Amino acid sequence: MQIARQRLEGPDGISERILVRETGTEAWFDVRAAARLRALERGATPAGARRLAETLVPSSMSAALSLGQAFHDAAQDALTAAREDTAVSDPVLTNALDPTSYRDFMVFQEHFSFGYRWQNKPVPDVMYELPVSYAGDPLSFLGPGDPIPWPPYTERLDYELELGIVIGKPGTNLTPDQALDHVLGLTILNDVSARDIQAREMTGGLGPSKGKHFACVTGPVITTLDDIPDDGLSVRARVNGETWCETTTAEMVWSVAEIVAWASQGETLRPGALLGSGTCNGGSTIEIGRTLSPGDRLELEIDKLGVLANTLATPTGSAWEPKPRPRGADGTTTDLHFLR
Amino acid sequence: MQIARQRLEGPDGISERILVRETGTEAWFDVRAAARLRALERGATPAGARRLAETLVPSSMSAALSLGQAFHDAAQDALTAAREDTAVSDPVLTNALDPTSYRDFMVFQEHFSFGYRWQNKPVPDVMYELPVSYAGDPLSFLGPGDPIPWPPYTERLDYELELGIVIGKPGTNLTPDQALDHVLGLTILNDVSARDIQAREMTGGLGPSKGKHFACVTGPVITTLDDIPDDGLSVRARVNGETWCETTTAEMVWSVAEIVAWASQGETLRPGALLGSGTCNGGSTIEIGRTLSPGDRLELEIDKLGVLANTLATPTGSAWEPKPRPRGADGTTTDLHFLR
Repeated sequence: MQIARQRLEGPDGISERILVRETGTEAWFDVRAAARLRALERGATPAGARRLAETLVPSSMSAALSLGQAFHDAAQDALTAAREDTAVSDPVLTNALDPTSYRDFMVFQEHFSFGYRWQNKPVPDVMYELPVSYAGDPLSFLGPGDPIPWPPYTERLDYELELGIVIGKPGTNLTPDQALDHVLGLTILNDVSARDIQAREMTGGLGPSKGKHFACVTGPVITTLDDIPDDGLSVRARVNGETWCETTTAEMVWSVAEIVAWASQGETLRPGALLGSGTCNGGSTIEIGRTLSPGDRLELEIDKLGVLANTLATPTGSAWEPKPRPRGADGTTTDLHFLR
Repeated sequence: MQIARQRLEGPDGISERILVRETGTEAWFDVRAAARLRALERGATPAGARRLAETLVPSSMSAALSLGQAFHDAAQDALTAAREDTAVSDPVLTNALDPTSYRDFMVFQEHFSFGYRWQNKPVPDVMYELPVSYAGDPLSFLGPGDPIPWPPYTERLDYELELGIVIGKPGTNLTPDQALDHVLGLTILNDVSARDIQAREMTGGLGPSKGKHFACVTGPVITTLDDIPDDGLSVRARVNGETWCETTTAEMVWSVAEIVAWASQGETLRPGALLGSGTCNGGSTIEIGRTLSPGDRLELEIDKLGVLANTLATPTGSAWEPKPRPRGADGTTTDLHFLR
């Protein structure tokens, strides 16, 4: 099954509607419309059917996944019944998932080996001991077609072509054998990066933050795990129509199952959480010696997951930047503050 | 004003109710109860008043803040009208804020200087050039009184006594002069840490993640900024009744206004976002050479913000840990995977 969200403008503003289809087919079905018709078939009044459908199939994918089997039943029914008046042709899709939390791993060896060289560091042993990650901001997610903002404080905007792992049901202290049962499916992830500020702030050993938090893109669909072959998916990045990257998801130092299992140790993974694989080998501009400009069109493609296409916006607004603190001979500052 | 949430068990399970009081007074008022009475006074039917009050004053503080002035009006009315039948005495408080996103800065000089020494690194210049941060998981937040889980993979659990900055209204590219107008108020934050795994994973230069994501604690109240003096708040940590830390919030290399302004560059801070100050000077066990054990009782206190008290749970469950990947003479591995 593939799950997506259609963005619709109506009298109440913009809202999203959850759609499903069989992987490999064209026709989408509107899950809330199907749930309303099903409720009518099962004796609900028109007003009751509408209320029930709105609750079972909210606009937020994370909110839908938080309903457990009730939502999955509605999605499966929409597909199975395939009611003609719930079919949607050529929908404008937005991000399938509005994540409730987001962390990004770094499991592609060529990419992380390059990344450490880029920071003038050796590859740390820990990269081969456990899956290492950082967390991002779940509030800054965009979908296909959305312009990617170019922050005023960067001159070096970059894409990162990644695999996104969507958690479907809660899990704690999972083993790799149990982990995949908690994964709803996979989606494309563009962990947009501002390389200049990222390199500066990462000398502090934390994050990154300002190099990442301004935007992240997912979509256009979530393909459920039962439709994903285990021998790897082909991956491509095109910029203005030219292929800049061609690789496979088969080259991960840590598997999807191991990533999910490790993420779940000592904490509860929740429905709607998004885990990124880290950049595929060759899947950003720094490692291929290219640069991006405002107006460039990105197309990130993964077999079975579609194409995630966005255009880079023009930088707008002027940024405030902190002034470095004055420091004494011992390297510390006495210029200390509280609120102001 | 102080804002808090009361946790109540009812026939529908556990839910939270938003309370307000004047800073420095005892009596709390239930904002949803007040909104229902106000709606009745303004001509609503009993059922309509109840529906309106539930919408204006949800259980989630982030959802309430997302309503803008409509929620603030309801909170102010609850306080001003001070209706006797909306008063709540001795409520059991949980985390005032269920954050929608969380990032933690590191602006206390003695703490971060110790932290880098602890990692055998010099203090990087960037710490005096801009406020450096990492993001945490907004889904793992606990409140006062909740047991702090002890993950099975750590032997070195620690608290971090911090100031939490609660964003009240959206803002982008703010200057420090504008920033405080977007802050609802301050709360106590315990950025719970598993030091052994944190030290290991941070050799990868990302995060931290598993050293942090399993738990974070805030509360018991949010005190609005107009009730906070600018000359610093006294801060104390007690463990099993013994004072382990006594310091002030006045010693920040970057001010609250600068932290918020920098966080807002190139991105939109949203209501319900939580920004942490980083650990106050001396505000964790590593820098004072102490250790914690299961069952220890923590009391983190900040003037005007109350006391955040929790007990450390006993480790339960057995953790799965990844096996290190075999590597060849060039340091890389050929043991690569996709799903499994």
